Amino acid sequence: MRRSIATVCVSGTLDDKLTAAAAAGFDGIELFENDLVVSPWSPAELRARCADLGLSIDLYQPFRDFEAVPPELLKENLRRARLKFDVMAELGADTMLVCSSVSPHAADDDGLAASQLSTLASLAAERGIRIAYEALAWGRHVSTWDHAWRIVQAAGHPALGLCLDSFHILSREVSPDGIAAITPGKIFFVQLADAPHLRMDVLQWSRHHRLFPGQGTFDLPGLITTIQASGYDGPLSLEVFNDVFRQSDPARTAIDAMRSLVALEDRAGLRPLPPAPALGRHAFTEIAVDGDTGPQLREALHGLGFTHTGQHRTKPVELWEQSACRVVLNSAVTRPGAAISAFAVTADDPDTALRRAEALLAPARVGAHGPRETSLASLTAPDGTEVFITGDEWRADFLPTGDQPGPGAGLTAVDHIGLTQPFDHFDEAGLFYDSVLGLERLPTQEYAAPFGLMRSLGLATADRGVRLALPASLLRRGDWAPGVIAPQHVAFSTSDVLTAAARLRGWTLTIPDNYYADLAARYALTDQAVEDLRAHGILYDRDAHGGELLHFYTPVHGGRVFFEVVERRGGYDGFGEANTPVRMAAHRHLRLTGG
Amino acid sequence: MRRSIATVCVSGTLDDKLTAAAAAGFDGIELFENDLVVSPWSPAELRARCADLGLSIDLYQPFRDFEAVPPELLKENLRRARLKFDVMAELGADTMLVCSSVSPHAADDDGLAASQLSTLASLAAERGIRIAYEALAWGRHVSTWDHAWRIVQAAGHPALGLCLDSFHILSREVSPDGIAAITPGKIFFVQLADAPHLRMDVLQWSRHHRLFPGQGTFDLPGLITTIQASGYDGPLSLEVFNDVFRQSDPARTAIDAMRSLVALEDRAGLRPLPPAPALGRHAFTEIAVDGDTGPQLREALHGLGFTHTGQHRTKPVELWEQSACRVVLNSAVTRPGAAISAFAVTADDPDTALRRAEALLAPARVGAHGPRETSLASLTAPDGTEVFITGDEWRADFLPTGDQPGPGAGLTAVDHIGLTQPFDHFDEAGLFYDSVLGLERLPTQEYAAPFGLMRSLGLATADRGVRLALPASLLRRGDWAPGVIAPQHVAFSTSDVLTAAARLRGWTLTIPDNYYADLAARYALTDQAVEDLRAHGILYDRDAHGGELLHFYTPVHGGRVFFEVVERRGGYDGFGEANTPVRMAAHRHLRLTGG
Repeated sequence: MRRSIATVCVSGTLDDKLTAAAAAGFDGIELFENDLVVSPWSPAELRARCADLGLSIDLYQPFRDFEAVPPELLKENLRRARLKFDVMAELGADTMLVCSSVSPHAADDDGLAASQLSTLASLAAERGIRIAYEALAWGRHVSTWDHAWRIVQAAGHPALGLCLDSFHILSREVSPDGIAAITPGKIFFVQLADAPHLRMDVLQWSRHHRLFPGQGTFDLPGLITTIQASGYDGPLSLEVFNDVFRQSDPARTAIDAMRSLVALEDRAGLRPLPPAPALGRHAFTEIAVDGDTGPQLREALHGLGFTHTGQHRTKPVELWEQSACRVVLNSAVTRPGAAISAFAVTADDPDTALRRAEALLAPARVGAHGPRETSLASLTAPDGTEVFITGDEWRADFLPTGDQPGPGAGLTAVDHIGLTQPFDHFDEAGLFYDSVLGLERLPTQEYAAPFGLMRSLGLATADRGVRLALPASLLRRGDWAPGVIAPQHVAFSTSDVLTAAARLRGWTLTIPDNYYADLAARYALTDQAVEDLRAHGILYDRDAHGGELLHFYTPVHGGRVFFEVVERRGGYDGFGEANTPVRMAAHRHLRLTGG
Repeated sequence: MRRSIATVCVSGTLDDKLTAAAAAGFDGIELFENDLVVSPWSPAELRARCADLGLSIDLYQPFRDFEAVPPELLKENLRRARLKFDVMAELGADTMLVCSSVSPHAADDDGLAASQLSTLASLAAERGIRIAYEALAWGRHVSTWDHAWRIVQAAGHPALGLCLDSFHILSREVSPDGIAAITPGKIFFVQLADAPHLRMDVLQWSRHHRLFPGQGTFDLPGLITTIQASGYDGPLSLEVFNDVFRQSDPARTAIDAMRSLVALEDRAGLRPLPPAPALGRHAFTEIAVDGDTGPQLREALHGLGFTHTGQHRTKPVELWEQSACRVVLNSAVTRPGAAISAFAVTADDPDTALRRAEALLAPARVGAHGPRETSLASLTAPDGTEVFITGDEWRADFLPTGDQPGPGAGLTAVDHIGLTQPFDHFDEAGLFYDSVLGLERLPTQEYAAPFGLMRSLGLATADRGVRLALPASLLRRGDWAPGVIAPQHVAFSTSDVLTAAARLRGWTLTIPDNYYADLAARYALTDQAVEDLRAHGILYDRDAHGGELLHFYTPVHGGRVFFEVVERRGGYDGFGEANTPVRMAAHRHLRLTGG
């Protein structure tokens, strides 16, 4: 099936949009009328430009408020349509989207709607054009796919068919199951969009909050399977109105769009991808440090009970270990400050994973490497973090220092990595990790933090051997917000948080007493239990099933990176987001007081 | 009446919030529990800090999910309350907000709710604390003020009263009129918030989109009058949850907040301000230019038919005129590029206007001036633009050049000035111009432009002698968006746009033919009328009442400033926002093609 994208999905002028769509590999576009109206290209010039780029114009859209009107208005609407057919002829576009009327002049009269749409289709057919009729979810009288289908059937014109838009279908209560029984050939076009579940006016929801497939909560693989059952073999076209995508780099948005479509086709069984990797564990997390922050991170790792066990054969790169917790300090990077620059996860079959990534427009790159170094291929995540999928071969790059691990602090493995995302690439990042690495999306959390709203997406393997937390600040902008540092962290797991906190006294973040007073009010904990938490700066969260998280943090090291220690009890599966505002305020307090 | 502000209104830690509230002149605060929980200050330390700043703690909030529960849960809830009363005692706070329950454990039983609230009030009274019960608009069983009042009456406890929140009242259908008849003394607290009209889940609307009074559409003066009628004389307190305010500079947000309250008290007749000025006309618009952009602007003004008629006595500042259109080019400013740095409007009584501005936290400043220069005082708008309110005395600063005005292009006066706002100060700017200058707010427009969504607020005097357009990009961020230049413009009026466009051939922005093909389809204009518009690059808009706007633009001069010429017909009162995307795409095309 052909892959199309509506020009409304991406930002810029028509030239920007077409260039981006072609570069991302789309076969065709839906041309949004307003994009043409503001363009200096004539329709013929646009047609030529599309041909040069290998793009077809699969749909001209939208033609509004046509059907079920009084005779004098019909006449005016047909005049309007003739002028648009002229434009379409010049464009070489053969399908026009007519969406169900929202006009107060439209009558609630299916017979009249069918008859007038049939008249329009006759006029179109003379020009070799087809009319694809679509039920807008907020149409005045026609707002469901089955209602539109009844009208199309009643009209019975070969040049009149349906346009199905997943948003308009899945945002309503009417089941899509009957779509499978639509007469073969009568679905002229299929538009796809995902969306988060929001309780708001459906028009506003549609116009501002659509997402690419896989970024929301709609069952799009199921819908596509149903549509396929009707024999549809036209384009699958993305039509996504999204406030963020409208103002982001179109080249990047188009790649995100194509990735979403490729992943959807895989899920719907249309074009299978190489399988997602069966990821094992966090292999190592790399922190890039400069001359100033290197000593701070070394001191912190030492303080947390880590030992410098390995030295890279050719580069200023150190391996620090404690049980299965491994941190690599990389001084070979030239950017200032400290940052989590890469992380590695283990997999049985890294090569298949890399082929899948490539098919999902996330090509692996092999870093420059010297003699005796393994050739580790890495993917680049949307925020620039390098992701290695590896077996155990990375260890061969390091020579043992001979230092033996000390007693440590009982930290056993990496529980999760937290990477603050720029909000404009938050949904892109979620789709990347979910489709490329095959991580499961956990419920998105939203919470108010001291410097504005935060949203956080968790991702994990089925056995939770690999976990990522991607927090993002929803609006943070301007000079005020002290959080522009986009902090990152590594969380280590322990089976005994109290002992770990006691051993790491001096390295933990101080939590205000007020927090514990509130904890005592909120939960039926014993006075002693609260006191134990308070004395060690341990935070507490409890889920709806009684699962518990006990965790503590370190101060921020090198301006951006901090560590966390977590003990999960009773199947707690979150990241303690309820406590994040407490952590953020404590970090800020420390910064202001010179900590 | 005392003026309070909830700590949730502004960004930062408690220290940031209190400092901002005190600096803006608030008398007290509502302490949001989470702000205390994350604070390193003990309650006693907070109490001392508030005392130092002259702030009282007028409300402790919120206590949730208390009433109408089974006995065992009541016991737990009373335990919770006792611990919070302990905190309040340390804080010296004497009123606790209890909001209506959203818990599935709450029964729909007013008698039980009244009895349990009475128990809570008894416990509170022993500690000298009062309970203010508030109906959340999304409360499970109690969601309207009158329902909460019936429960408070049934409880009949002297330490139990109502908290009235304007959002919860005005977002619902229940009339507030009956509030006037509430027993004197039983309204314990009043929280104020405005909001735009939005069709969405009321909880999300409340938590993300509240605004300060005067920035939304609620009738707050009316509500306050009603509340006053009950004899209420407690604090008027702002409680505004807003995504933007949550992440903006708290000092600035607090001033915006105080301005909104002062303006509201004036409108409600509680504390009258000096009257708003009766503004006359645009006196002049000042464009700051540097060495590179000065020649470009001079050439453009000359091309548009302006004459350099005056030279400032002591500064490199030129006056350019055409009829009542006056542009001042100021080369004395040191910032790079070109920008509308100031505008002046005429008023009969500038001194009163300045006193009003001062009362609204917008103090006038008198610029440095040399001999024989008039002492013009100016206000600073939220985006930094200087606003002069003046008679005719400003002319005395300019010596005639002796150049006589040429034939010009038929431009008669300034129709409006367009100043692109940073979105985070969009609502602040609207309130500033509306309260300080007494301009009327016209309906806000929202539209999709090539580089993202735009919102635009128009403001004008009653006779439309002064008009401002404040467009803002809703999200524009990051490296892609080419609109970060925040363009500004001056629009001149004419009574004959065709003649003006003909005379200014060569200075007008080229509009794509596609626009005119679409215009012909949309409106029943004659072919000749469309051709006349097309030939001159004139854009067209029509309002619902048949009013028409014919307008054209110039290219951008000096990187940021452009001009517009408008002819209004039949009472057209907008700014042609429907055509803004066309203008933006044309400007971008010109930039990319080196125009």
